[in-house]
Amino acid sequence: MVDQSASAAVNRQIVFSSIPDGLPTLDNFTLVESPVPEPQDGQIRVRHLFLGLSPSARLRMAGDSDYGAGMPLGKPVQGQAVGVVDISRNPAFQPGDHLVVNGGWQSYSVTSGRGATRVDADLAPPSCALGLLGTSGMTAYVGMLDIGLPKAGETVVVSAASGSVGSVAGQIAKLKGCRVVGVAGGAEKCDYVTKTLGFDACVDHRAPGLPQRLAAACPEGIDIYFENVGGAVRSAVWPLFNDFGRVVLCGMISDYQNREGLTGPDWFPILTHRLTIRGFLLRDHADRRDAFLADMADWYRSGMVRYREDVADGLEQAPAAFIRLLRGDNFGKTLVRLADG
Amino acid sequence: MVDQSASAAVNRQIVFSSIPDGLPTLDNFTLVESPVPEPQDGQIRVRHLFLGLSPSARLRMAGDSDYGAGMPLGKPVQGQAVGVVDISRNPAFQPGDHLVVNGGWQSYSVTSGRGATRVDADLAPPSCALGLLGTSGMTAYVGMLDIGLPKAGETVVVSAASGSVGSVAGQIAKLKGCRVVGVAGGAEKCDYVTKTLGFDACVDHRAPGLPQRLAAACPEGIDIYFENVGGAVRSAVWPLFNDFGRVVLCGMISDYQNREGLTGPDWFPILTHRLTIRGFLLRDHADRRDAFLADMADWYRSGMVRYREDVADGLEQAPAAFIRLLRGDNFGKTLVRLADG
Repeated sequence: MVDQSASAAVNRQIVFSSIPDGLPTLDNFTLVESPVPEPQDGQIRVRHLFLGLSPSARLRMAGDSDYGAGMPLGKPVQGQAVGVVDISRNPAFQPGDHLVVNGGWQSYSVTSGRGATRVDADLAPPSCALGLLGTSGMTAYVGMLDIGLPKAGETVVVSAASGSVGSVAGQIAKLKGCRVVGVAGGAEKCDYVTKTLGFDACVDHRAPGLPQRLAAACPEGIDIYFENVGGAVRSAVWPLFNDFGRVVLCGMISDYQNREGLTGPDWFPILTHRLTIRGFLLRDHADRRDAFLADMADWYRSGMVRYREDVADGLEQAPAAFIRLLRGDNFGKTLVRLADG
Repeated sequence: MVDQSASAAVNRQIVFSSIPDGLPTLDNFTLVESPVPEPQDGQIRVRHLFLGLSPSARLRMAGDSDYGAGMPLGKPVQGQAVGVVDISRNPAFQPGDHLVVNGGWQSYSVTSGRGATRVDADLAPPSCALGLLGTSGMTAYVGMLDIGLPKAGETVVVSAASGSVGSVAGQIAKLKGCRVVGVAGGAEKCDYVTKTLGFDACVDHRAPGLPQRLAAACPEGIDIYFENVGGAVRSAVWPLFNDFGRVVLCGMISDYQNREGLTGPDWFPILTHRLTIRGFLLRDHADRRDAFLADMADWYRSGMVRYREDVADGLEQAPAAFIRLLRGDNFGKTLVRLADG
């Protein structure tokens, strides 16, 4: 039993200290230590166990945009954490409660509890609440089922197929009877996607000849493209659509670093193949949360959906883990472990 | 009473004689005369009254594509005609029946009657069957109602707003309680769009500062864009979308001449504004024909939908009328009148 009281005297924080130019570097972040904050009446203090890293944070590091308010400099990097209530001055929460909070990259956060999500620690390990049973898993669920509308026998292509969203989106399509083709970076990830996740095929986007290899993996064309990446993968998908194909636009990680002068593909196939391109953000789909949790917990416990975490140890590793995620060098949901639960 | 028998001895045809490079020229077409064809058992002969010209014919003049089979050289230019059954050797048709046929640019055509559409000459003048009560009107109807899903109070932008599809699409959106902004070429067309068709505003895409003027005409943003043109109009629309906006992709006339190296707009707004971009072709929506005819005939007779034809006189004028249509110099549904009904 480690004595937590000594470390609890200090709140370690990774502060967002300068705006990246392209891919972030370690210089954009600063590790600082400050006193652990005290909750006021109506507030709770949450001791973070894991941080969940998401590529979309890169967008907010560029300032205010249509995507949302920019991330403020000089404050801890924003992001989700799962943690335990440490002190409660809000009768709605008890010490020991597990919560997901937008607590940022630090050891502790203080919140009124608004926007916090309760975690059922009996359902799965708490870290799952940042991934499979959290934002990533629900993004995959809503995106594939409600936006993609998969039908048995259709061909579904999922980019970033070994990642936290793509891996789950593809497995859901498999559960619905689709032929599922992943796109991932490198042979190891492709092996994982086919052998562990059970996709029908996986194409390595880092090897030459992506368009030809993707076409060969989709002999009956593409009915649904689950879009996480943009760029060259999208270009390879574009000529292969069947009539009435759908694009589930979930993210475009390859376009997040430099957004100047970007274009999209020619619209002609949208007309000739009667395609539907639809973007979505999870925040519009809160009404699906109960169905998602029930289905996904069931699929997870029964082994029908497999899930992988890429865990870095220690708060100070968060910037490097984030950069690896943006480079596509992560392998599974990218987490930073801060303390044992 | 003109004696038709003399002219009936000759079938005049406009033959597609060479593939255009960019905008077609008169040299791509040849007027020829041949004997009037005789129907065989099971066939009918149709004397054409009007030809209906459509920009999409330009696409088929480039050869086979995803849009459909290419138009054969050395044969009459393909396209719709409305006409009267002249000789029937098919018991399903009587001489005097009015039909829309894919008869091509010629005085007469012979057909089994498959693919022909009966025209109720009591409903409206026969030429309407090529426009308001035909393909153009039904494209507007299905596109606006079934793909656009307009809600009262929304802002709808319609490109090619004085044209045969756009004019009707915008009037339908008005009937549904939307604020409707047209985009058209030149002050005369813009006047027609606001004063005769009743759109709330119309922006001239031939005058400078289109993006600024369109933004000023849409102070509450854009909820639906009815896309007929592509190019610069689409670029001006793109930054103005509200959340959950829809694009009804009906055509892209400005992109039909030269399709090399075309790109579309950056996809980022599709994600941040949760847009839906959807292409459609009328041929998938035949089940809506009865509802369309009932609604549109009612709207037309009650004056709720106004409609304009741009009629060229004489078969030999068809190539010039087609070129004017592709240049946007037409004003209303482009027809060629061949004979009096």
